[in-house]
Amino acid sequence: MFQKLLLLLALVLIYCSNKNSAIITAIGFSILGYFVTNFLIPKVGPSFIKIGLFGKDLSKPGKPVLPETIGAVSAIVYLFVVLSYIPFIFYKYMVVTTSGGGERGNVIPSHEESLNSTIFPHDRLCEYLSSILCLQSTILLGIADDLFDLRWRHKFFLPITGSIPLLVIYYVDFGVTYVLIPGFIQRWMQLTASTIDLGGLYYVYMAAMGIFCPNSINILAGVNGLEVGQSIVLGILELLNDTLYLTLGSKQARAAHRFSAVLIIPFLGVSLALWKWNRWPAKVFVGDTYCYFAGMVFAVVGILGHFSKTILLLFIPQILNFLYSCPQLFKIVPCPRHRLPHFNEEDGLMYPSVANLKDEPPKSWFIPILRLLNCFKLIQLEFDDKDKSKIISCSNMTLINLTLVWFGPMREDRLCNRILQIQFLIGLLALFARHAGGAMLFGHDNLWT
Amino acid sequence: MFQKLLLLLALVLIYCSNKNSAIITAIGFSILGYFVTNFLIPKVGPSFIKIGLFGKDLSKPGKPVLPETIGAVSAIVYLFVVLSYIPFIFYKYMVVTTSGGGERGNVIPSHEESLNSTIFPHDRLCEYLSSILCLQSTILLGIADDLFDLRWRHKFFLPITGSIPLLVIYYVDFGVTYVLIPGFIQRWMQLTASTIDLGGLYYVYMAAMGIFCPNSINILAGVNGLEVGQSIVLGILELLNDTLYLTLGSKQARAAHRFSAVLIIPFLGVSLALWKWNRWPAKVFVGDTYCYFAGMVFAVVGILGHFSKTILLLFIPQILNFLYSCPQLFKIVPCPRHRLPHFNEEDGLMYPSVANLKDEPPKSWFIPILRLLNCFKLIQLEFDDKDKSKIISCSNMTLINLTLVWFGPMREDRLCNRILQIQFLIGLLALFARHAGGAMLFGHDNLWT
Repeated sequence: MFQKLLLLLALVLIYCSNKNSAIITAIGFSILGYFVTNFLIPKVGPSFIKIGLFGKDLSKPGKPVLPETIGAVSAIVYLFVVLSYIPFIFYKYMVVTTSGGGERGNVIPSHEESLNSTIFPHDRLCEYLSSILCLQSTILLGIADDLFDLRWRHKFFLPITGSIPLLVIYYVDFGVTYVLIPGFIQRWMQLTASTIDLGGLYYVYMAAMGIFCPNSINILAGVNGLEVGQSIVLGILELLNDTLYLTLGSKQARAAHRFSAVLIIPFLGVSLALWKWNRWPAKVFVGDTYCYFAGMVFAVVGILGHFSKTILLLFIPQILNFLYSCPQLFKIVPCPRHRLPHFNEEDGLMYPSVANLKDEPPKSWFIPILRLLNCFKLIQLEFDDKDKSKIISCSNMTLINLTLVWFGPMREDRLCNRILQIQFLIGLLALFARHAGGAMLFGHDNLWT
Repeated sequence: MFQKLLLLLALVLIYCSNKNSAIITAIGFSILGYFVTNFLIPKVGPSFIKIGLFGKDLSKPGKPVLPETIGAVSAIVYLFVVLSYIPFIFYKYMVVTTSGGGERGNVIPSHEESLNSTIFPHDRLCEYLSSILCLQSTILLGIADDLFDLRWRHKFFLPITGSIPLLVIYYVDFGVTYVLIPGFIQRWMQLTASTIDLGGLYYVYMAAMGIFCPNSINILAGVNGLEVGQSIVLGILELLNDTLYLTLGSKQARAAHRFSAVLIIPFLGVSLALWKWNRWPAKVFVGDTYCYFAGMVFAVVGILGHFSKTILLLFIPQILNFLYSCPQLFKIVPCPRHRLPHFNEEDGLMYPSVANLKDEPPKSWFIPILRLLNCFKLIQLEFDDKDKSKIISCSNMTLINLTLVWFGPMREDRLCNRILQIQFLIGLLALFARHAGGAMLFGHDNLWT
């Protein structure tokens, strides 16, 4: 009953959207996307298992076999949604402002007019298409990864090839490669210009975004629902930021953030459906495809909206997770093949997993640092019973294990929720700092200019 | 040595293309695409076999196992090529005619100017992006088909979902839904208008193109190299047609056919590399992905260039193959599961395969038609030794078997080449008829107006 009402609401929103804004269309289609994804996931699961796309859930009694790569379903539904609402978010505007008849591309609305409208102007279509193209490339590469189980070094650079369409369009269509210089640096270095042109470096920076966002979601994983959960939290935070700009921002900022919201709202729809199936106790696994896709959504939004630094702020938990992992990634501390938390079948709780330091000691210069981290409860060390100065194991260096060190053993779903709460809190603080701090650094917050 | 020279030529062409036309860039990138595809195919083959993407070559002694779906490699290289030369074919123009600095979308060249230039104007970028998007969707769906081995009725309608981006962009960006009315109909029905607006029907027609082209290539298959071979022949024919327009056509026609050539030239590059591996004796199979992709390239070119009827003329052999197959497809004549020609291990030749009409007779009203077809050597019937009026088998109704009926048993490579020759000949005649006949039907051939 509730589902039917929701579906009806979606249709009403889509119908009404002709007279209203692109955001309302997005909400309608997002609800539709939720239902379609939710319908498809249980249907396709067995086919995925049949062709070998499955994995064992190691944190459950009996280690059940679950279909893998199901996130590809969400991703493909997302593509259909963002493709099929192009006419809704672009068409009305065109009918009103152009003469029609095959030469629409030649009639261009005034810039002022296009910023005022709540529907997108035509010159946004290229941007929009290149975003979809970039996401679709990422999905294609993600599927290749899930199918062929690529090597780590291929995996790492894979998303960058997906971002080629975006960079190319940015180059052809915008070419804006300058960034603002904070006020205090301007004064300090006695600069007359308030911006600096990064040139080619800006493309390197954008490509780095395209590598970082997808991989960082892929790395913070291993607990039922965490990949999707963190993507949903990221989406909500970004949507909060968009709402801020859409209600208080300048016209220019409004256009960029409307674009962002229009891409993120349906992303939340398909992700929530996936979350329903992937949360504890998981019935499906999401696969690398989803992680790459989700990360790329944020990279795309940040790059085309020209607020990629704000996006990076939202990724602070993922960045911390990466930095925290470095000693193990670079083999300073031995790194076991799997660093998932340890599941105890007896009490059904998750415990921090450990790296054995007895047989394979860490680099000697790093031992004092390990002890220091232990003092601040940033790691859990186990000492030899006889020789208290000898470390025999340390908890694996991931945010997941750290959460277990802090809050003690807990059930998998509580662990996931706790991590998501921390992520949400950090994100809120980051957004606050960005708007309060931005005003200080640049002399003004671009929210109101 | 020859390869290195060719590669050097490609780089020179790409370098020079800044000063010349988009076509030259396309040729340069096409050669690069050939080398990359040719390099990748043998590398990835074993991985494809490992994840279960393989098939048996039934027309070889010992039925060797070959990797399947290798056409996906060509398709993905093609995507990279057409994405990475966007700056080359669009950028120079933009630098010259716009002020730059992030507002390029707002500066619009005069229509006249954009038609004169040999580089594409900005308003073509949306078209171009939507073509790539459409092809990428098709590839994604083709891969799903190859992986999950979809049912026939799903397969059939699959390509239409791939063409959604194209139709949406056509709707938003062109909206031209009228077609020319032939002169004699105008006079006959005493019409004042020379065009008729098909409205929504035009979209149905375009969607039908999106179903027909991919499936028709998929149906004319079963002999080493035939899928790729026929796509290459189609590409060459279309390129001939483009050359005709580019040298003799009006400015408007030139722009449309430059667009077509720019998409088809790299298609030929990646297809030739695939052909090298797929031709007799095949070392790889192409898979449905390639067939859908190849068909969609032609559908896209026809739809966006607004010359889809000419494209259909080039598909006459595929149309004939489909019509000829109908009695078996609609079960008027029994249809065995496989209709591939029969391979005789003793002499290494291919023979027409037959449908058994003894146990399962055809519909009785169709028997006279079968006899008539037999008279014209359009089918091969086998009669009962005792009762000459009783048909015990007929050759399967495909163009491949018909070729064997006409020209006698032959080796697989000769069979493929013979079919391609026939296809090329029919295509040439169709193009000739189109330009000679178009002038008669419409009062003028649009080549010179």
